[in-house]
Amino acid sequence: MEINLISDTVTKPTKEMLEAMMNAKVGDDVFKADPTVNLLQEKVADMFGMEDALFFPSGTMANQTAIKVHTQPGDRMFCDKWAHVYNYEGGGAAFNAGVTSCLIDGDKGMFTADQLESLVSGRNDIHTPYSRLVCVENTTNKGGGACWDFEELQKIQKVAKATNLAYHLDGARLFNALVAKNETPKQYGALFDTISICLSKGLGAPVGSVLVGSKAHIEKALRVRKLFGGGMRQAGFLAAAGIYALDNQVARLAEDHLKAKEIGMVLESCSYVKKVEPIETNIVIFYVDDSINPDDFMKKMADKGVLLISMGEGKIRIVTHLDYTSEMHEKLVEELQHFA
Amino acid sequence: MEINLISDTVTKPTKEMLEAMMNAKVGDDVFKADPTVNLLQEKVADMFGMEDALFFPSGTMANQTAIKVHTQPGDRMFCDKWAHVYNYEGGGAAFNAGVTSCLIDGDKGMFTADQLESLVSGRNDIHTPYSRLVCVENTTNKGGGACWDFEELQKIQKVAKATNLAYHLDGARLFNALVAKNETPKQYGALFDTISICLSKGLGAPVGSVLVGSKAHIEKALRVRKLFGGGMRQAGFLAAAGIYALDNQVARLAEDHLKAKEIGMVLESCSYVKKVEPIETNIVIFYVDDSINPDDFMKKMADKGVLLISMGEGKIRIVTHLDYTSEMHEKLVEELQHFA
Amino acid sequence: MEINLISDTVTKPTKEMLEAMMNAKVGDDVFKADPTVNLLQEKVADMFGMEDALFFPSGTMANQTAIKVHTQPGDRMFCDKWAHVYNYEGGGAAFNAGVTSCLIDGDKGMFTADQLESLVSGRNDIHTPYSRLVCVENTTNKGGGACWDFEELQKIQKVAKATNLAYHLDGARLFNALVAKNETPKQYGALFDTISICLSKGLGAPVGSVLVGSKAHIEKALRVRKLFGGGMRQAGFLAAAGIYALDNQVARLAEDHLKAKEIGMVLESCSYVKKVEPIETNIVIFYVDDSINPDDFMKKMADKGVLLISMGEGKIRIVTHLDYTSEMHEKLVEELQHFA
Amino acid sequence: MEINLISDTVTKPTKEMLEAMMNAKVGDDVFKADPTVNLLQEKVADMFGMEDALFFPSGTMANQTAIKVHTQPGDRMFCDKWAHVYNYEGGGAAFNAGVTSCLIDGDKGMFTADQLESLVSGRNDIHTPYSRLVCVENTTNKGGGACWDFEELQKIQKVAKATNLAYHLDGARLFNALVAKNETPKQYGALFDTISICLSKGLGAPVGSVLVGSKAHIEKALRVRKLFGGGMRQAGFLAAAGIYALDNQVARLAEDHLKAKEIGMVLESCSYVKKVEPIETNIVIFYVDDSINPDDFMKKMADKGVLLISMGEGKIRIVTHLDYTSEMHEKLVEELQHFA
Repeated sequence: MEINLISDTVTKPTKEMLEAMMNAKVGDDVFKADPTVNLLQEKVADMFGMEDALFFPSGTMANQTAIKVHTQPGDRMFCDKWAHVYNYEGGGAAFNAGVTSCLIDGDKGMFTADQLESLVSGRNDIHTPYSRLVCVENTTNKGGGACWDFEELQKIQKVAKATNLAYHLDGARLFNALVAKNETPKQYGALFDTISICLSKGLGAPVGSVLVGSKAHIEKALRVRKLFGGGMRQAGFLAAAGIYALDNQVARLAEDHLKAKEIGMVLESCSYVKKVEPIETNIVIFYVDDSINPDDFMKKMADKGVLLISMGEGKIRIVTHLDYTSEMHEKLVEELQHFA
Repeated sequence: MEINLISDTVTKPTKEMLEAMMNAKVGDDVFKADPTVNLLQEKVADMFGMEDALFFPSGTMANQTAIKVHTQPGDRMFCDKWAHVYNYEGGGAAFNAGVTSCLIDGDKGMFTADQLESLVSGRNDIHTPYSRLVCVENTTNKGGGACWDFEELQKIQKVAKATNLAYHLDGARLFNALVAKNETPKQYGALFDTISICLSKGLGAPVGSVLVGSKAHIEKALRVRKLFGGGMRQAGFLAAAGIYALDNQVARLAEDHLKAKEIGMVLESCSYVKKVEPIETNIVIFYVDDSINPDDFMKKMADKGVLLISMGEGKIRIVTHLDYTSEMHEKLVEELQHFA
Repeated sequence: MEINLISDTVTKPTKEMLEAMMNAKVGDDVFKADPTVNLLQEKVADMFGMEDALFFPSGTMANQTAIKVHTQPGDRMFCDKWAHVYNYEGGGAAFNAGVTSCLIDGDKGMFTADQLESLVSGRNDIHTPYSRLVCVENTTNKGGGACWDFEELQKIQKVAKATNLAYHLDGARLFNALVAKNETPKQYGALFDTISICLSKGLGAPVGSVLVGSKAHIEKALRVRKLFGGGMRQAGFLAAAGIYALDNQVARLAEDHLKAKEIGMVLESCSYVKKVEPIETNIVIFYVDDSINPDDFMKKMADKGVLLISMGEGKIRIVTHLDYTSEMHEKLVEELQHFA
Repeated sequence: MEINLISDTVTKPTKEMLEAMMNAKVGDDVFKADPTVNLLQEKVADMFGMEDALFFPSGTMANQTAIKVHTQPGDRMFCDKWAHVYNYEGGGAAFNAGVTSCLIDGDKGMFTADQLESLVSGRNDIHTPYSRLVCVENTTNKGGGACWDFEELQKIQKVAKATNLAYHLDGARLFNALVAKNETPKQYGALFDTISICLSKGLGAPVGSVLVGSKAHIEKALRVRKLFGGGMRQAGFLAAAGIYALDNQVARLAEDHLKAKEIGMVLESCSYVKKVEPIETNIVIFYVDDSINPDDFMKKMADKGVLLISMGEGKIRIVTHLDYTSEMHEKLVEELQHFA
């Protein structure tokens, strides 16, 4: 029994999701003629109370498209120093959009409206990149699945409006935040210009993200997606999985969160663990004692069939998900408790 | 009964292909851990006798990636004035790669080695874009599915080598050419630096293209695909369809070609048809008489359930494909013969 | 005595121009505090009846800035197949602005409004670059100094307005056209969105070009110039030469034109000359007989102290200018008549 | 008497420099035929013991060209969080080169080799921009004219070599550092891949910077300069001023430094001054007491004819230079001492 806790992206469709996929009505989405893709897009737009939505082969492309839609070359976007859009999208903001990233020194991937305001209100003339966009990520990946305080997000919106910044949410794991904090998509739809959500992380679909926003933004996004080569043909098979996930696999994220918290408690009790970061959703980040090399720890666990991932600087990450069963959970707890 | 002849991209998976998809073993391809994607990539590399291959969500992204892999901003690529990479990829060569397109005035989308040579041998200093890449497309889309003469492709390779140009083949419909001309993938693999093939046109898979080339080129392509956001998670469902298509749906392209030729003969006999372009594969391009407006013609056909597409300048296009049955063929012939 | 007819860019300041330069009041133009630069910019804006103007270190930068000001990455600009912006600016439209060039098959570097209209009215959806700009060049460099018909330029403006294209004039040698056709800067200012003029060709200043347009366009241009690094400090020394040139060296372009026509007549009478292109301004383009290799011809002339330049495809170019004296003219005529 | 201490870029040529300009032999530098530009380039290459050099209209363009020469789109460069290349070049690294900036949290604009090493040695796969370049600035502008420790620069070179980073020096005020620390250009030439120096700051020339490096780098730089439109015609007038400055106005930078230190001592003694940053060269940065608004302070000084500039966050900057005479110095000291 392999226990893969590297990421919540490793899940495979359930039997029911697979059936939904195989029964999907499809068409050529390049001609906007795939009914299942259209249905998914309408569904997500409705969920968030926004005008329109667009399906993408990846969250990276959904985010990069949003950055391109909101900016021109020479512009500047603000994000946390740990943001996925800066750290894990290959330098795409500069590559795809000619955009400079201005990093904010936040806490667990989250900054404050005041921090943003003090940066935006600095020098702003032809010598500096033009300030045009602020991105937040909820939950924060590198911040250990932390959830933003909604009031802070509202304050950031005020700063963004006052300073003419577009406001994008990288919602790769937004549904984890919604479940953990008992919030609704519509609350977020009312706040942001664009939101990307990922169907293939906690939601368990095999492929795909959706960008949601106004009609005008999505029309521009369609053009950018074409330029990146992100237009697919009979993508309805993938969209069907997304619809199934949204209908059936959102509430169950609470189980992933519970398991993550239980793992955290076990780790707290292990003598070889130095520190466990606070756990809010499905991500556990911890540090082993100086007596153990983190890479050795991960290797030994791998030998026992447990796959973990390093986040750099001694951080080890565990991500719970749909395919992480109770049986696996029991085994993991045992392995952690008796690690030597 | 709707007869959709707009493109060979509109096909839907057969029952057998759908079963192959449903039974695919999948994993997270971002970690290179999707066995079916890996299998498809090896299969295509082997077919072409090339080192490596990479799966893409679209042919546009496969081509754009190749352009980026072979060039730097400020470089120049040569292609026919009707080339897909210039006309239908949104201006991506300039947008994604900062590359200038130098168009060659070919015949039915095909130019000669001499034409290329005379252009490359012109002024080449800091005032002009640097010549770095030549792209050909086989079969030619806008050229009516015409197939290149293989000896001319060999001559172009010689010019490319002598002038340090990379040599890319947009093989969106390459298998149509292979079947029509009785050629092999390995012949092409020996000639080109990179080749893109499309699984979702005549081959009938729902989504996906493959770029094939040397290890070094594909390693660079992986990085570029990441920057575009083209990395997908459990893409094995799509790859399984591609494998099925390559195993089972190549030889049958001959049927599409036959039907296309029969349609051409019928059109030749119709009094309202001014001209039919020579038909080599599955694309029929024809012009109606001045007495009929081409848009009216298409509209009337649409009313009868037959969907065609305009190529501009009075050209009407018919594309035969997997989902175009004998029954539809009979009906189409009748409609064309009795059009009034 | 060296007779350099390679280009009208080789001229050196006259004694009077040099005095004007050395007496210039200067300041730091990055802070908009160089009075002579400011004066030049106002002067040119006034001449053309446009709102504002900006000084540039080169005509290439003035044109590239205009292209960037009018477009976004993924857009398309239309220009003649011989246009300087396409052929001699290094592929800058793609490199600097991500813009695709759509070339028009004109005559001597000039196309018609009808040609433009038929291209713009073609397919225009997300698959094609967005049409956004049309550039003309007057006089045409590669077209042998030919002057546009002003009525055709007006017709092109109508097409541009009707199709939402910006309209830019590369006026590197516009003053030659104004003198040859007895036209005024204000006529052109009323027609175009932006115009670049060069101070260092026929006008004889050492360095610099000016871009003229609306306040909004020039404000954007200032930002783009900063991004290219085109902002200079005490640039007033160069601007002073430009002011002197505009005040004193425009009318005398007629002398260059006269000498060019005389050279043309001499060439027509030479047995070894196959063809002389019509001469409208200060550029003479001719072809030698097949019995002589063009490179040999230029080399032999160089041995006699006469420097010419090849335009490719057997074309040889002579450009008359401020430093081409009557004495040189007599010598050249003699050398041409007795060439063997 | 206006005392402009905003920047050392505001200086005007001396009578002797103006004479050198007026007597310059010039030619068309686009054809590499301007003897004075060629002489300047050779002179600077020799000074630094490097192979070749290239003249630029601005330091921004020299730096941006270096960034482009060393990188490809999608790459990453490292620099201090206060670096000019990041803060004051308009976002050019992203705009011109598609390069992501990774900022280092240094001290007065200077970081350590260890800081660089820990950043470079982090994750480096297709998800992150590729590490390709490190830039340092000496003296540091925003760091108050601080000079790097040469041994630290040597250590950084070792890290750069070990990690395949190119190493660029923004030497806008390098000569201030050389004079202050008694170092030589050749020491720096041996350390860096490319160095930009500015002729129009402390050196007092009106316009221009020089990029110096290997033959291969300068050849690429020539191409990039062309793409930006930085090629000028008879630029020898500007180059002559640069040559004069290098021959005659380097040693005198010591006077600027002395005056700056004297101003610093005066400020230290002023009750309304909260803090004066350590002064190493010609830049003085200080903070006024909370009882005075910095903008008011600058306004009142302006009313007395003394122009200063804000660096943001309450910092006020004074820069001494060639045109700041002893008479002005006396007056400034008096104004500062009696400010109320």
